Amino acid sequence: MDDTERLAETIKALLAESRDERLADVLEEAHPADVSRVIRELPPDEGVRVFRLLSRERAGAVLSELDDPVLRELVGSLEETEVSRILDRMPPDHVVEVVEELPREQAEGILELMEEEKSEEVQELLEYREGTAGRLMSREFVAVHERTTVAQAIEHIRKATTGEDAFYVWVVDGHEHLVGLVPLHRLLAADPHTPISAIRNEDVESVTVDTDQEEVARLVQHYNVIEVPVVDANRRLLGTIGVEDVIDVIREEATEDIQRLGGVAGDETVLDPPRAVFGKRLVWRLVNLGTAVLAASVIGLFESSIQALATLAVFMPIVASMGGIGTTQTATVVVRGIALGDMTSSVLRRVLGKELWLGLTTGAANGLVIALIAWLWKGQILLSLILGVALVFNMLVAAIVGTLIPMALKTFRVDPAIASSVIITTFTDVCGFFSFLGLATLLIRFLL
Amino acid sequence: MDDTERLAETIKALLAESRDERLADVLEEAHPADVSRVIRELPPDEGVRVFRLLSRERAGAVLSELDDPVLRELVGSLEETEVSRILDRMPPDHVVEVVEELPREQAEGILELMEEEKSEEVQELLEYREGTAGRLMSREFVAVHERTTVAQAIEHIRKATTGEDAFYVWVVDGHEHLVGLVPLHRLLAADPHTPISAIRNEDVESVTVDTDQEEVARLVQHYNVIEVPVVDANRRLLGTIGVEDVIDVIREEATEDIQRLGGVAGDETVLDPPRAVFGKRLVWRLVNLGTAVLAASVIGLFESSIQALATLAVFMPIVASMGGIGTTQTATVVVRGIALGDMTSSVLRRVLGKELWLGLTTGAANGLVIALIAWLWKGQILLSLILGVALVFNMLVAAIVGTLIPMALKTFRVDPAIASSVIITTFTDVCGFFSFLGLATLLIRFLL
Repeated sequence: MDDTERLAETIKALLAESRDERLADVLEEAHPADVSRVIRELPPDEGVRVFRLLSRERAGAVLSELDDPVLRELVGSLEETEVSRILDRMPPDHVVEVVEELPREQAEGILELMEEEKSEEVQELLEYREGTAGRLMSREFVAVHERTTVAQAIEHIRKATTGEDAFYVWVVDGHEHLVGLVPLHRLLAADPHTPISAIRNEDVESVTVDTDQEEVARLVQHYNVIEVPVVDANRRLLGTIGVEDVIDVIREEATEDIQRLGGVAGDETVLDPPRAVFGKRLVWRLVNLGTAVLAASVIGLFESSIQALATLAVFMPIVASMGGIGTTQTATVVVRGIALGDMTSSVLRRVLGKELWLGLTTGAANGLVIALIAWLWKGQILLSLILGVALVFNMLVAAIVGTLIPMALKTFRVDPAIASSVIITTFTDVCGFFSFLGLATLLIRFLL
Repeated sequence: MDDTERLAETIKALLAESRDERLADVLEEAHPADVSRVIRELPPDEGVRVFRLLSRERAGAVLSELDDPVLRELVGSLEETEVSRILDRMPPDHVVEVVEELPREQAEGILELMEEEKSEEVQELLEYREGTAGRLMSREFVAVHERTTVAQAIEHIRKATTGEDAFYVWVVDGHEHLVGLVPLHRLLAADPHTPISAIRNEDVESVTVDTDQEEVARLVQHYNVIEVPVVDANRRLLGTIGVEDVIDVIREEATEDIQRLGGVAGDETVLDPPRAVFGKRLVWRLVNLGTAVLAASVIGLFESSIQALATLAVFMPIVASMGGIGTTQTATVVVRGIALGDMTSSVLRRVLGKELWLGLTTGAANGLVIALIAWLWKGQILLSLILGVALVFNMLVAAIVGTLIPMALKTFRVDPAIASSVIITTFTDVCGFFSFLGLATLLIRFLL
């Protein structure tokens, strides 16, 4: 990212010296992706200053690279007319990406000020649910009738106004039904008189407008395609989704999984203003407080045993902590497996068997180690054995909980990634404290 | 994934009835990606049976979709000559993907049995380090001299033997230096007599053979390109990396981050045989055992206070648990920010400020709640206050540790994701137990 950092330095220097003309030249030559990154890192008012120096074409490209909440803040500081003139020059699917991030009223105001035709196209796309193929698709694709020849198809492409992101030519029948595709490379290599139908791929994987974007991403990864056609219930071609949008989806979904597993909302970035994330962070911290109180109440049941033998309090968190790593490891692998499509109900038994085996073997190994440490430390052999047994037991609980809870969430169509350590380690905390302190209480007269 | 599931059912039924001829027909028509997925889910011996029914072309395509350790197991069950005949028909970069997963001896044996020319090409690619652009690149690209015309370039593409995954034509000068690219779409639309140099993009982002694959992925995401050129130190074009390989990298890196944050090796899949992952799981569990013993030894310092007031043991884990969620949340956002390129040293102050603010505000909110709960439960106002104060303090520690440790690891070129909860929560465990039990011990005579 050296280019971006150098650009950032140049821009900051020119801003400080207020050399706006020179700055405008620099911005005109920089890549919009770099400019948007620099704007993200600048304080809001300087970001606006930089943005205003961009030509309208550039401004549009920069805008579609920005994400919420920086985008929201920037657009909020501009006039609505100013924004609508910029959006007028952008492809509808990019406008959608901007407008969907804005507060409803502002979005409506801006759409009203836009050119009517463009505004209508955007509103049609906005009718599809967020997170579906319809929301992602672009309508600017090249389609030819199955009976055209290669030469005619090439002529058609020449006249088309689509961008240069088109890498396939789509083949449709008389009713606009998708019946195949031809990669441009093959079109170029073919004899001009060949009919398109002779060189098309017939087996084309397509999605419908309400296919989930995660499914679209899985299709692209599984079949190695770089453009996915979106069709209606009758297989009429409505639009296409390019691989660059799919990569964004893959990235977003990975961020969501990572963050949810870590007890964060799923769409937080390091640069978000603290106030914007306060509520979401607090919710999980309160949930965690609740589960911690639950675990504490289990300990409370055994307060008299601890009163009698304070050493119990020393070892108690070890069992819980080991249960924590056990569940976290298992749940992490399972949640990722679900996301990658490896973890299905048909392999559930096999995976559960694996985790139980791992729980038992690593549990036994760890149990022996901790029993030995405890014995050397406190010299109480029975207490050491109780600790070891409770640890093995808790590792088995971890294997079961870590495997089954994400799968159960998936069955109920809840994101398995919310099975974050906050939630699942509650089970091992409770079981851990219960088994260790319970066993110790049962055998307390031999311990004192 | 309905197609794959249906295919799996059909294959299992045909296998059970031993209808091999019918099965071969089904396999010939299925997508290689689907076949490889079904093989992964089958027991190893049945997987081999299915694989042997594939034609050589298909077998190669299926092989390059499989990953370690299923690939290893499958190849291990086949004759080396059998495998080398299949690899002979695959593009060198795909052969590399297979061979690099195999044990060294087996790989060498197979390479020796392959056609000499192919084998040499593969070995050249294998000389580049794993995880670099050199390892990923394909040498089958289309390059034309900058002085050719559009018509000549098209003629060149017709004769080229590259696959259909080529979407750009690369432009080079007389010394094979990369000087631009032309998307195929633009080539099609241009007048045949135009010189290529008039329609090329000059600003082409390239990487060198030893660029890290993560950096390649970042480039693709940042600039929305679908093919990345790989050049040597003199900017001579050596190969290209297609977006499908980049998507695999993005997926692998996300898996690695998610798993390492969860204390797992980084490349485990749910279907891995338990024995293959035992060692890696155990290592982290042992590390965790070590950190848990460390935390326990802190508690051990205050054993006499606990002996005097067992209620301390009840509340003690709450402070540690809250520190745990605090560090995990912060570290998760920071680690992901580093991976996405948002978290750089230039924003470190801002992010640290944000996390401290969040630690203080959510800590205060949580501290009040827990103090109230503790007071209602045990009726000891001073103990409740100590608990609240220790919690706020621990949330501040969490903010600092969660931000600085991943950044420090990045500075030392260690993957920030190994700052998993196992490691970082040790700090909050220790600080939490120390502050809560320490404060309580200082004030013990007011508590009894």
